[in-house]
Amino acid sequence: MFLKFYPMTLTAKIVKASIFCLVWAVAPLIARVSAPASIEKWGTYEIELTGPSDGNPFADVTLSAEFTDGTRTINVPGFYDGDGVYRIRFMPEETGNWSYFTHSNRWPLTERRGTFTVTAPTTKGNHGPVRVANTYHFAYADGTPFRQIGTTCYTWTHRPDAVEEQTLKTLAASPFNKIRMCVFPQTHGIKTMPPPRFPFAGEPTKPDYTRFNPDFFQHLEKRIGQLRELGIESDLILFHPYDDDHIWGLDNMPAAVEDFYVRYLVARLAAYRNIWWSMANEYDYVRTKTEADWDRNFQVVQASDPFNHLRSIHNGKMIYDHNKPWVTHVSMQNGSAVEEVGRALLYRDVYRKPIVYDEVVYEGNHRLRWAQIDGHEMVHRFWVGTVAGTYVGHGEYLIDTNDPARAAEYGAKDPKGNNAFVWVGQGGALKGESPARLAFLRKILEDSPVTGIDPIDKWWTVGMGGKPGEYYLVYFGHEKPTSWTFELYRDGIADGNQFKIEVIDTWDMTITPLDGVFAAKKKDGYTFIEENGRAVALPGKPGIALRIRRVAGVVGEISDKPPGN
Amino acid sequence: MFLKFYPMTLTAKIVKASIFCLVWAVAPLIARVSAPASIEKWGTYEIELTGPSDGNPFADVTLSAEFTDGTRTINVPGFYDGDGVYRIRFMPEETGNWSYFTHSNRWPLTERRGTFTVTAPTTKGNHGPVRVANTYHFAYADGTPFRQIGTTCYTWTHRPDAVEEQTLKTLAASPFNKIRMCVFPQTHGIKTMPPPRFPFAGEPTKPDYTRFNPDFFQHLEKRIGQLRELGIESDLILFHPYDDDHIWGLDNMPAAVEDFYVRYLVARLAAYRNIWWSMANEYDYVRTKTEADWDRNFQVVQASDPFNHLRSIHNGKMIYDHNKPWVTHVSMQNGSAVEEVGRALLYRDVYRKPIVYDEVVYEGNHRLRWAQIDGHEMVHRFWVGTVAGTYVGHGEYLIDTNDPARAAEYGAKDPKGNNAFVWVGQGGALKGESPARLAFLRKILEDSPVTGIDPIDKWWTVGMGGKPGEYYLVYFGHEKPTSWTFELYRDGIADGNQFKIEVIDTWDMTITPLDGVFAAKKKDGYTFIEENGRAVALPGKPGIALRIRRVAGVVGEISDKPPGN
Repeated sequence: MFLKFYPMTLTAKIVKASIFCLVWAVAPLIARVSAPASIEKWGTYEIELTGPSDGNPFADVTLSAEFTDGTRTINVPGFYDGDGVYRIRFMPEETGNWSYFTHSNRWPLTERRGTFTVTAPTTKGNHGPVRVANTYHFAYADGTPFRQIGTTCYTWTHRPDAVEEQTLKTLAASPFNKIRMCVFPQTHGIKTMPPPRFPFAGEPTKPDYTRFNPDFFQHLEKRIGQLRELGIESDLILFHPYDDDHIWGLDNMPAAVEDFYVRYLVARLAAYRNIWWSMANEYDYVRTKTEADWDRNFQVVQASDPFNHLRSIHNGKMIYDHNKPWVTHVSMQNGSAVEEVGRALLYRDVYRKPIVYDEVVYEGNHRLRWAQIDGHEMVHRFWVGTVAGTYVGHGEYLIDTNDPARAAEYGAKDPKGNNAFVWVGQGGALKGESPARLAFLRKILEDSPVTGIDPIDKWWTVGMGGKPGEYYLVYFGHEKPTSWTFELYRDGIADGNQFKIEVIDTWDMTITPLDGVFAAKKKDGYTFIEENGRAVALPGKPGIALRIRRVAGVVGEISDKPPGN
Repeated sequence: MFLKFYPMTLTAKIVKASIFCLVWAVAPLIARVSAPASIEKWGTYEIELTGPSDGNPFADVTLSAEFTDGTRTINVPGFYDGDGVYRIRFMPEETGNWSYFTHSNRWPLTERRGTFTVTAPTTKGNHGPVRVANTYHFAYADGTPFRQIGTTCYTWTHRPDAVEEQTLKTLAASPFNKIRMCVFPQTHGIKTMPPPRFPFAGEPTKPDYTRFNPDFFQHLEKRIGQLRELGIESDLILFHPYDDDHIWGLDNMPAAVEDFYVRYLVARLAAYRNIWWSMANEYDYVRTKTEADWDRNFQVVQASDPFNHLRSIHNGKMIYDHNKPWVTHVSMQNGSAVEEVGRALLYRDVYRKPIVYDEVVYEGNHRLRWAQIDGHEMVHRFWVGTVAGTYVGHGEYLIDTNDPARAAEYGAKDPKGNNAFVWVGQGGALKGESPARLAFLRKILEDSPVTGIDPIDKWWTVGMGGKPGEYYLVYFGHEKPTSWTFELYRDGIADGNQFKIEVIDTWDMTITPLDGVFAAKKKDGYTFIEENGRAVALPGKPGIALRIRRVAGVVGEISDKPPGN
């Protein structure tokens, strides 16, 4: 029965009906409560309470609070943090005066009240949580577009402190604004770097599924809080298959334990505005679970998270049904899809949700093919995803070939790197050539239409994204064109509209404006050309893009006709 | 209330409880019943009954029959066919002795019984209805693979008899084993060729939604029956948007009328083994309906069809959620997806259902871009779809440029053709260059693995489909390679396996066997090469494929490892 939670409203009713009048008469049982008087919007407001530490507080004690500003009421689950300490964390989404009122099945924790003020955000970079915007894109809650340039360090929070601190420094100087990371450690490489903490009490290989290890979660929170300070979203992976032979029992929990863990995790972390929930990495390789289990995990997260953070699931070979209503965006492993724009855009229409290509093969020197593309190809995949109206995630698997034994172990064939860590697993330092170019891309995206980049002429003109009539990115990929004749799909363009064009070298990171303006003239029912048929000279190398922006004239008609008309 | 149907069991109970003993006392009210004594399996067994013709029998009279062979009982809806005639059509799926028992809310039609024998099929080409097989493929009910080579003649059954007969003759000599066709006429071109029949009583532009026109449906059935004789599946389109301004009221019926129509159509046609149900063509251009309407239409079909024929829906710009459980396979309009194999295979994993690219742009000479690819490109798209493990549909829009006025009207720029009809709309004769090459492809498919062609190394090796270790089709598309080095993905291959290779010219329709055999040798963790590294000479032109078949050695290991390992 240790997993049984009572719904807070029922708990409250039982408490009220049976012993309401007794509460104030038993002062010694009342908890110490500590909570601040004010908090900024989208900050983490935390109520700390002392309470019973006997029995098994993780399972036996229910705790929650109702927060209200008089207009809205939000029920927030609390959690036991060890040593008789309980916490309730709230992420206010409106400024003004708020109050709370606690519920519990234990006297000391129930019917505690308080008031506080929510101020406008003052912390630099606090734009609130990221939400879906314009169907295919993301924006922070304050409306600022979020241009996802993600990376992956699966188990960076399971490393020696010095390595973790180095990872944070590296991230601070990187272009990445989202990181995919696992709650649980992975077994790979544990001989050289054993995980210092485990989520459950008990022995690592004999977990006590009835009790959590607060130290594990406190550490995770600390790191996620540091990412928040850096303006980096934590795409937190709840489950993964990298627990060979179930040695830690983290990939084969009974369903009830899964629920217990998921609720605990969400109660601890949902008030961090930079949290995204990723149900799993390579969900289909978790051989112990069915798709119904993943449906349930999604629903438990959705029901437990008062702040409705983004939810996704990442695949191996099988693709989960991302059309299910609890999936907010697609987290796709498929490097092939971002080799070519015509592929990358296909998933958009299928799901009508943002598509993030999380894992597109690593920039790496591994003998295995999923970890051996070079920096050029990584940058190429980001640009493909971008002009397709989708988003891409980075990964790096560069093995330190200064260590010959290690290089031999991995079959590393291309000597690179200067430390012993592989970014995608351990973090540490980035060694690859792509991050600088991704920073360049990020700058370009930050100067692109606020509504996002969408395919301009879906299923017909491949390699062109933007906003009809206003802004275009044309990407030539591996081709090496020496010229481009101005020709744009009709939507949003009117005769006489004037455009400025810049030539972008995605690798050398240059932006070269072309002389003069390009005046559009209707060519036929589909396209507009430059009035004199002007062509653009291009450098004849791969990785070239054009940025085309309207500088004069008003936006033309945008047709709702069938695609071919 | 004219649309209200009583569930047959309820009807039966009412009839039995109230007047069972009276039935045999009112002989003059009993209908004439006519039904054969035997029928072949998957044939159409028809019970004809005479009954009331007063009032509105379409709406007022309920009729159905229970068919049983003692093991299974199947409830089959009947329908009113005009002039006091009612019919119940049954497609037996098991041989043996069967009996039926009718239910109705009218005395003359109720509790009629009969017995009949279902024999093994004797009609040539009767393999039963087509079902989904091996997740991504189709097979007839008797297990014979169905290799879809479809075409489209939207409104060929709304033409003068002579044209319709010509269409049938053309189809008989064509490679096509499936045709997409609309129940309803379309408005385009009605000035020159007005539709001779309409589905509802009343005037064409003032339909009486309460009564059907049996002549309309009898004609449709006749044509579908003729297709059945030719071994051609009828992918019947229930709704479409080509009713400009709702002039016939066929694209804007109230929901209850839609249900009434769908149930009537299904009752008439479900016993034709060659029926597939396509909810709509370009469903999203039917501006009067929401996606919930399409969900409902699917569910009405599913609930009404005792024989569970294939169900799909075809898109314009928006893609329906084909993951919904009532969709049996994907009917996709997206020509771009079959330009390149890496695109074409992406939808497979999304839906885990057969993918049919119904409408991939027409072989045509129209000024509009959706009707102007040439025969080469059409054949290319079929091959792309094939090696991607999907299926493709043909369409032809070649305008008769012997008629200058007509050619000018359509802006036809490439003089071709020898009659006034456009295949995709009217039928008639085929004029294009692709059908002969599709016949060639069909022959190749008929000699391919019974389980279907699947991508060999999904998301990694693009352009190779088949069955691991046994059979491979390698397609080079628009590339013009002059050689190919034998290299196959590891799955199913063991050292020493011997393969025969043929070079296929998909346009010139030649198959050239290469000398000798190719013995496989493991190259690395991913691939096998020929033991001497042998390469294959190729003709350096586009549209070349290879067929590689194992001729000696047993199938090797098929790995279930993650995709990159």
